[in-house]
Amino acid sequence: MRNNIGLLLTKRAMLSPAMDGLVEVERGRRFTFPGVNARANRTANALRALGVGPGDRVALLLMNGVEFTESFFAIAKIGAVVVPLNWRLVPDELAFILGDSGATALVFDEEFRTTVSNLHGRGAGATAVRHWIEVGTSAGRAEFARAYDEIQADASDAEPPIGAGDDDDAYIMYTSGTTGLPKGVVHTHESVLWACFTIALTADTRYRDRYAIVLPLFHVGALTPLLGNVQRGITSVLMRAFDPVRLYETIAAERVTVLLAVPAMLNFMLQVPDHGQYDVSSLRWVMSGAAPVPVTLIESYAKRGIEIVQVYGLTESCGPACLINPEDAITHAGSTGKPFFHTDVRVVDEAGTDVAPGTPGEVLVRGKHVMKGYWNRPDATAETIRDGWLHTGDVATVDAEGFVYINDRKKDMIISGGENIYPAEIENVILSHPKVREVAVIGQPSAKWGESPLAVVVKQDDSLTEADVVEWSRGKLAGYKRPRTVRFVDEIPRNPAGKILKRVLRDRFPEPATE
Amino acid sequence: MRNNIGLLLTKRAMLSPAMDGLVEVERGRRFTFPGVNARANRTANALRALGVGPGDRVALLLMNGVEFTESFFAIAKIGAVVVPLNWRLVPDELAFILGDSGATALVFDEEFRTTVSNLHGRGAGATAVRHWIEVGTSAGRAEFARAYDEIQADASDAEPPIGAGDDDDAYIMYTSGTTGLPKGVVHTHESVLWACFTIALTADTRYRDRYAIVLPLFHVGALTPLLGNVQRGITSVLMRAFDPVRLYETIAAERVTVLLAVPAMLNFMLQVPDHGQYDVSSLRWVMSGAAPVPVTLIESYAKRGIEIVQVYGLTESCGPACLINPEDAITHAGSTGKPFFHTDVRVVDEAGTDVAPGTPGEVLVRGKHVMKGYWNRPDATAETIRDGWLHTGDVATVDAEGFVYINDRKKDMIISGGENIYPAEIENVILSHPKVREVAVIGQPSAKWGESPLAVVVKQDDSLTEADVVEWSRGKLAGYKRPRTVRFVDEIPRNPAGKILKRVLRDRFPEPATE
Repeated sequence: MRNNIGLLLTKRAMLSPAMDGLVEVERGRRFTFPGVNARANRTANALRALGVGPGDRVALLLMNGVEFTESFFAIAKIGAVVVPLNWRLVPDELAFILGDSGATALVFDEEFRTTVSNLHGRGAGATAVRHWIEVGTSAGRAEFARAYDEIQADASDAEPPIGAGDDDDAYIMYTSGTTGLPKGVVHTHESVLWACFTIALTADTRYRDRYAIVLPLFHVGALTPLLGNVQRGITSVLMRAFDPVRLYETIAAERVTVLLAVPAMLNFMLQVPDHGQYDVSSLRWVMSGAAPVPVTLIESYAKRGIEIVQVYGLTESCGPACLINPEDAITHAGSTGKPFFHTDVRVVDEAGTDVAPGTPGEVLVRGKHVMKGYWNRPDATAETIRDGWLHTGDVATVDAEGFVYINDRKKDMIISGGENIYPAEIENVILSHPKVREVAVIGQPSAKWGESPLAVVVKQDDSLTEADVVEWSRGKLAGYKRPRTVRFVDEIPRNPAGKILKRVLRDRFPEPATE
Repeated sequence: MRNNIGLLLTKRAMLSPAMDGLVEVERGRRFTFPGVNARANRTANALRALGVGPGDRVALLLMNGVEFTESFFAIAKIGAVVVPLNWRLVPDELAFILGDSGATALVFDEEFRTTVSNLHGRGAGATAVRHWIEVGTSAGRAEFARAYDEIQADASDAEPPIGAGDDDDAYIMYTSGTTGLPKGVVHTHESVLWACFTIALTADTRYRDRYAIVLPLFHVGALTPLLGNVQRGITSVLMRAFDPVRLYETIAAERVTVLLAVPAMLNFMLQVPDHGQYDVSSLRWVMSGAAPVPVTLIESYAKRGIEIVQVYGLTESCGPACLINPEDAITHAGSTGKPFFHTDVRVVDEAGTDVAPGTPGEVLVRGKHVMKGYWNRPDATAETIRDGWLHTGDVATVDAEGFVYINDRKKDMIISGGENIYPAEIENVILSHPKVREVAVIGQPSAKWGESPLAVVVKQDDSLTEADVVEWSRGKLAGYKRPRTVRFVDEIPRNPAGKILKRVLRDRFPEPATE
C-alpha cells in the first residue's frame, strides 16, 4: 500500500459525507467533502485527457478557494507534481519559476489574466507550458486559454487511477534564497503526510473544528494546515484577501474555532474600531508565526479567551519545526517553543556540536516531513541537508528547559565592532515600549564599527520620539547593541507570509542619516 | 531518522512536562510524563546491565500500572521486543508462549508469583527465561527472582542508546488460532506508529484528554490507546480490575473525558443502584468494541450526554479496522462503521472480488498498521497476508453507503467479556478426555458476558457427565475459556466434506438452558 496525499480527500469524503469541507468567504460558496472530492476527480480526469501524467508539473496561479484545493488534490492523485505560484510575483519572476520547474500546464485565476498573457506572449521558448487553463466566472477569457469550468464539466467524477505515492514528488514550492534566485523545495507524498501528522499530534486541532485560513495557499504555512484539515475532518474557511472587519464577521457567522494569521494581521484586528462588538466566542485559538508575537498581543487576545499559539517553520520542513503554547509564550517571552512531535531540532556551533544553554548556534531540523531536496539543485541540497539534518541558516539559543529562541536569520546578523548582534533581540526590547506598534532592526554601514543597528519603527502613539526609543533600551541591552538612530515609518514592508522584508528596508535606508 | 516507539514517551515528556502522564486508580499513584520517562530509562538501563539487547524478547506478566507502561517503553527504546502476557492464562499456556517466543527475561507482578514459580520449577529446558524480575510492594519475593524496584533504583535515568526502529520488531502479542495453538502476532515500530496515527485522526481524542483504561494492557485494544495517549498528550487513568462503582468514582474524581470499555462493562455500570448520583459530566465519549453494542445501551448513555463509539479491530491490525460514531450506530444498528483513516477495508467473495451490497464476504484489511506476520510461522503468515491484504477470516456485508456489518467470525471465534476464545482450543482439551468421542464448541448469547462457550459432546462412554467435562478443563484452560455448560448429542452435524456445521448447532442451542 503506497500513500498518496490526494487520497486524503477521497477518504475524508467517505468518512464525513455530511460535513462542510470548504467554505469560500468572499464568493459565499460552500462544499461538502464529497462535493470537493467529486470536483477534484473531474479536474484529475480532465488533466489526464489533456495528456498530463505522473511526474508532469502543473502550476497553480490561484487565490484561496475551491479551485486551488481541488486542483491540488487532483494533481496529487494522478501522480503529477503541483507547483503553487506566488501571485504577488511579477512576470519575470513567474517566468523563471515556470521555466525552472518545467511546468507543462498552468491553471490561473481570471484576476491574473494580464500577467499570464504576458507570460504566454513570451512564446514557446520562455516556458514549457502547453496547457493554459483559466478559472473565471466572467464571460471573457484569454483567447489562448481553455475554460476551467468547461473542461471540468466534460470530465467524469470517478476516482482516477492513482499515479504516485510515498517518496514520489508531490509538489515543488519556490522560496527566495540568499542568492536571490528562487529555489524549488521538493516535497514528497510522504513528507507532506508526516507534516500533517506532526500538526495533528502537536497542535490542539479537533475533529469538526472550523479553521479559517487567511494566508495565501501558495505558502507552506497555509497549505499544510489545509491538507491537515482534510485529513483530520476539519472545515476550512478560506478567505482570498485579509480584511479585518470581514474576518470578524466571518468568525461570528461561520463559528470559526481556529484561525491562522500572522502577527501583523492580529494587530490590525485590534485596531478595528469597536472590535469588542464582534462575537468571537467560538474562537478557541490562533495559530501564528513568521514573526515573534509580542506578549502584549498574546495578552490582549487572552482577555477575550483566545489563545495564540506560535509556530516556527520553514518551507523546507513542510511547515512544522517548533511550536509554543500561549502559557509558555508569556513565561518564556520571545521563545518559539519546542520541536513538534516527530521532529528533532538541534542548535549547534560551527563544529556541529550542541551549544550550551544561552549560546547562539545554527538551528538544525530533522524529521520525515523535511523536504527531499531542491529541484534540480543537487549542490544546494547537499549543502542544506547534511547527515540527515536540515541546516536552516537561522540562529537561535536554547534555554535549560529546552525552549528555543530564534535570534535571527543568519544572513540578517549585524556585526558591530567584532560583536555579533541579532536584530530580533533588539526588536523584542523596543517592541515592549508601550508607544511602539512595530519595529524592524537592520544594519547600516558604520565607519567606526563596521555596522551599526538602525531601528525602523511604526508608532502606536504619535508622541513617541527617537530619544524615547533610544532611552528605552538603555540598561536593557549591552551598549554595542543599542540603536542610536531611529526612523519612523507608516508601515513595515512584509512578504505575504508576514515576514519582514529587511532587504527593502536596507534599500530604503542604505546610509546613516547625517543631520 | 528511524522511528522508535519508545521515543514517543521521551518526546512527550519534553513537550508536556507538567501534565499527568499516568494515574493508577487502585494504588493511588500518579506520575508526570517526565516521571514515567525517567522510570522507563532506569528500567531500560537495568535491562541492558543484565545483558538484554536489540532483538531479545522480554515478557511482561503485569497488571495495568506504571510498571507495565514504563517497561514497555524501556524495552522498545533498547530495541528489545516486548511479549505482553495474558495473566488469565494457566501455566501450561504461558509455558508454550514463553517457549515459542524464546523470551529470556520475564517481569511479573507479585500477584502471579505462584504461577511464575510453577514455570520456573519446570527447569531450564521448559523456557529460555534467564532473568526473573518480580514487581511488588510487599517484603517477600520468589527466591529465584530479582526485585524490580531494586534493579531500577540501581540504574541511571539517562536516555539509553536507541536499539531499533522502523521495521524492526517492537512486540509479539499471542492470539489463539484455529489450530488451537497460540500464534505470535509481530508488530514493528512502524506498524505501531501507524496504528497510533489512525486513532489520532479517526477518533475524537484531544490534547489534554483524560482517558480511563479498564481493559488489560496485554490486549491490543488497550495497548494501542495507551501508546496513542502518550503520543497525543493525553493522561491515561489505569485500573487493574473492573469495578463499576470504583469506575464511577474515578470518572468523577479524575475528570475522565474518554473511557475504554467493552459492552459487558457498560452494561454492568447501568446495573449499579442509583448510578445517576455519580458525576459523569466530564465524560465525552466511550470507546467500545469486541462485541456489538446494543442500540438501547447507546441510547441510555446518550441520555447522560455520553457518546459510545464502536470499534472493530484485530490484534493483527494493531487494533484499528473500522469505527462507527454514535449517530451512525443508531441509524445503522449492528454496523461496525467504516474503515479508519489510512486503513483500507474490502469485503470479498471466494474469488477475491468485492461483493455487492448485502452479500456476505470475507473482510480484508490493509494499512501500514497491519502486522509484519506471525512469529516463526511463515506458513500461517503467507496464508493470512496475501497481496498485501490481511485476510481476517471474519464474514461481513457492506451496505450501499459503505457501512460494514460483521456477520460472523469465520474462525468461529467466541468473544466473552471482551476476550477472544477460539473453540478449537477448547475442543482439543475436551477431546483428550478418554470418555469423549466428539466435541464442538459454540458461543451462546450471555447477558453478562456477551457470549459464553457451550460444549456439544458425543459420548464415548455412557458414564460421562457434564461435571466430568467441566472439571477436565480446569487447570488446562484459562477460566474464561472453560465451558460451564455441556449438551450431549448422538451426532455432531457435518457437511459432506466432514466439516462441522456450527450454524446447525447454533440453531439447535440458541439460548443457554435454564434449569
